[in-house]
Amino acid sequence: MTLVLGGARSGKSRYAEGLIEARPGPWRYVATAQPFDDEMRARIAEHRARRPPPWETVDAPRDLPAAIARAPAGRPVLVDCLTLWLTNAMLDEAADLAAETDALVEACRAVAGPLVLVSNEVGYGIVPENALARRFRDEAGRLHQRLGAIADRVVLVVAGLPMIIKGDVQ
Amino acid sequence: MTLVLGGARSGKSRYAEGLIEARPGPWRYVATAQPFDDEMRARIAEHRARRPPPWETVDAPRDLPAAIARAPAGRPVLVDCLTLWLTNAMLDEAADLAAETDALVEACRAVAGPLVLVSNEVGYGIVPENALARRFRDEAGRLHQRLGAIADRVVLVVAGLPMIIKGDVQ
Amino acid sequence: MTLVLGGARSGKSRYAEGLIEARPGPWRYVATAQPFDDEMRARIAEHRARRPPPWETVDAPRDLPAAIARAPAGRPVLVDCLTLWLTNAMLDEAADLAAETDALVEACRAVAGPLVLVSNEVGYGIVPENALARRFRDEAGRLHQRLGAIADRVVLVVAGLPMIIKGDVQ
Repeated sequence: MTLVLGGARSGKSRYAEGLIEARPGPWRYVATAQPFDDEMRARIAEHRARRPPPWETVDAPRDLPAAIARAPAGRPVLVDCLTLWLTNAMLDEAADLAAETDALVEACRAVAGPLVLVSNEVGYGIVPENALARRFRDEAGRLHQRLGAIADRVVLVVAGLPMIIKGDVQ
Repeated sequence: MTLVLGGARSGKSRYAEGLIEARPGPWRYVATAQPFDDEMRARIAEHRARRPPPWETVDAPRDLPAAIARAPAGRPVLVDCLTLWLTNAMLDEAADLAAETDALVEACRAVAGPLVLVSNEVGYGIVPENALARRFRDEAGRLHQRLGAIADRVVLVVAGLPMIIKGDVQ
Repeated sequence: MTLVLGGARSGKSRYAEGLIEARPGPWRYVATAQPFDDEMRARIAEHRARRPPPWETVDAPRDLPAAIARAPAGRPVLVDCLTLWLTNAMLDEAADLAAETDALVEACRAVAGPLVLVSNEVGYGIVPENALARRFRDEAGRLHQRLGAIADRVVLVVAGLPMIIKGDVQ
């Protein structure tokens, strides 16, 4: 299991795809984006264009733990990205975020095959004035700590280049 | 002297506590938080719950240099965190920030025992629209540079994991 | 070619100047700042005060590729900074940003002598509410990826200290 962190447009998705494509296909892409506006639709389209078969795409904007658990045994799985999933969960007033986060950590721990998780680093700016934004970056930070603790490798991507925070250089 | 930097909820406080707890106790915790709202009170309570004796807590929201200087010789000291102290100083219109910062750097340099300073990295986002926020991140960046220059070790915590920027891996 | 990234007041300019000053002078400083307000004028003045001869300063707030290409062969060149140039280009409604970015990457690739590029990391905070700010950090991230791919060395400066992301420790 590898956790790939990075800022906006840092090249983290591309780096994560490279990790998966170094394995024999087919590869499963678990997409968490919800196309709720044009900007997001354009971003999803750009990401999809980079993933012809043997990539197979599964959309999981809400039930990410189940989507991870359902992957065929040994299939390389890329989740892109955790922060969009967290956004979706926080915007769902019926959600039990603590339970969903526990389920996600459990699903990641239980996967036997290669699993690469992509997530945005969002905590290195000024404290946001918006309370929801503050809660979001707290939740994202906590999730990264939990996944960082169980991951075999943690990588921070800067300018398209990997900095290895945990684990061996590949 | 160790400077521990990290984003929001990066696990920097926990990592810093681990550095101190690797030494024989008692350990002095110098807290800079001011409980001015419920969110901050909740955060302080969570931090305190992690620090039963042999931790001893000293509150120093304003006169941090004196609190550092007053620690018994050789006592391991953890300061958490510099950015809250800087916020408090900037909100105090009577404060001479340059003089206080000089005094802080001097106090850190003069400490004989183990000293661990925790601070938030706040300069890796978009330029804030708010002038006070811009000044805050400038002051925080300058303080980190000065302390980074005299620290024996500087660590950036990402997803709960340390990246050593200066000094030896412990 | 070295790409020096860092947050606000991280010490990236000073670090980059040190890289250039380790070479025989004269050294060319290509400044991209536009003094459109008092805050920016103060920052420019502070930067200039650090650069007496053998530094020679060239202002290039808009046509940065030409300014890089015009440097005498072998002359060490410091560009400070790319994010200000990108801001200027994005605020110029007549600009063809894609073409200008291509030209910049080409100019950097074509330089024979030592070239150090300074730029702000701006993508590690919460997604900005402002659409222009979102587009800016996307463009900055993309530019950093392209330059990171062709640079010999990429360095992230934290608390005035370099983390080498690509290339050898100097």
